Amino acid sequence: MRFTSEQRLDDGVLEREFTLGEIPGILWTPGSASAPTPLILLGHPGGLRQMYPRLAGRARHYAAEYGFAAAAIELFGSGDRPRSAAAEQARADLRRAMEAGEPVGEIVDALVLPLVEKAVPEWQATMDALLSLPEIDGPVGYAGGVIAIGIRLAAVEPRISAAGFFAGSFVPATMFEEARQVTIPLQFLLQWDDEGNDRQSALDLFDALGSKEKTLHANLGGHTGVPQFEVDDGARFFARHLR
Amino acid sequence: MRFTSEQRLDDGVLEREFTLGEIPGILWTPGSASAPTPLILLGHPGGLRQMYPRLAGRARHYAAEYGFAAAAIELFGSGDRPRSAAAEQARADLRRAMEAGEPVGEIVDALVLPLVEKAVPEWQATMDALLSLPEIDGPVGYAGGVIAIGIRLAAVEPRISAAGFFAGSFVPATMFEEARQVTIPLQFLLQWDDEGNDRQSALDLFDALGSKEKTLHANLGGHTGVPQFEVDDGARFFARHLR
Repeated sequence: MRFTSEQRLDDGVLEREFTLGEIPGILWTPGSASAPTPLILLGHPGGLRQMYPRLAGRARHYAAEYGFAAAAIELFGSGDRPRSAAAEQARADLRRAMEAGEPVGEIVDALVLPLVEKAVPEWQATMDALLSLPEIDGPVGYAGGVIAIGIRLAAVEPRISAAGFFAGSFVPATMFEEARQVTIPLQFLLQWDDEGNDRQSALDLFDALGSKEKTLHANLGGHTGVPQFEVDDGARFFARHLR
Repeated sequence: MRFTSEQRLDDGVLEREFTLGEIPGILWTPGSASAPTPLILLGHPGGLRQMYPRLAGRARHYAAEYGFAAAAIELFGSGDRPRSAAAEQARADLRRAMEAGEPVGEIVDALVLPLVEKAVPEWQATMDALLSLPEIDGPVGYAGGVIAIGIRLAAVEPRISAAGFFAGSFVPATMFEEARQVTIPLQFLLQWDDEGNDRQSALDLFDALGSKEKTLHANLGGHTGVPQFEVDDGARFFARHLR
């Protein structure tokens, strides 16, 4: 891992851009670390630059108020990373099928499954690198979107101790079985009127997840309308489980 | 209103029993009040003595940590108040119908609607009395169970500014229309596997409530398994809306 920039923000949080092989990412660490420092992996739909304001807002809240480190990486096929022709095609197909009100199951499989296959080992390599830094101790939490990636990661990676999933994207039907293998504490965030996701399918997914300790937070409004207070609710959830 | 006992608890909270006409109740107020003191009405299924540990736990957290006053009253037909033969009959019918897996709609109407008719004016009289005390300023929140009472109260009583409903009891189908008239901010607490309540019906009720700002918190487990952290989540919700 190579740090390519470093910036001390006005809340004392240290923001560093890095590359790990071909993967670009951003790491936020607390200004002063007195206790062991857990790590939160920030899931997002791709496009680090476009997502930066929201990601940095959450990461800085975690770091400044709770002493967590947080990191985001660019997804395969997004941002400045090489495009996947198959993924671009699947994205266009999905848009068209949703506008036409047609079934999307096979398109979701074609779009999301390869993304999960790629992203999970990349997150694991990122964890290897970040947890080897002296200023990050773990345990590790996953927070955010592309819930299919979060589910696979939580199912296969024992270093993930808790997860806050944002149920704002499709999950392939075949992954519901995998969801049953997730047993860590979960906070599951749902926008009640998400225009790009099916409410009943999200509730079925919450039901399918194998964790004994799981909480659904559903708020009125569309995909981008998550209330500001949920950022702190998420941080408090991680404080209960990662400290 | 007449205070019949007074006790200073070890967290500084003042606990007073009172009677208002034939209604017995308990009032908890903060040990030191520096800011305006909002009031939380604690809904519960009846039986103040039996419910005391849970009610006092929540009230003392509200008072000691957030500076809220909180009050509970005995429901008509519960505790030491005169029994209603019709309600006792409806309760027995409901138990039998649920055990037999029979439809409960008409029984719920017979049980809950008279309770709502009685409880709402009693809560309003209690608010009149409590808000006239110099140590309580308002605004007022409703928190807890018998959600049908909370819905009617929130629909008709403009002094209620926010409500945290516990969706752990049946709501007559006729009251879903009333739910649409509720417009205050809501936190809606649901036990995902509540043995005495129907999950889909509770989700439909959440959907029906007219409030633009409403959050569903659903936790795994049965009726009495609400996690301890929801007490503080509820208090933080009220702090956002009553301060």
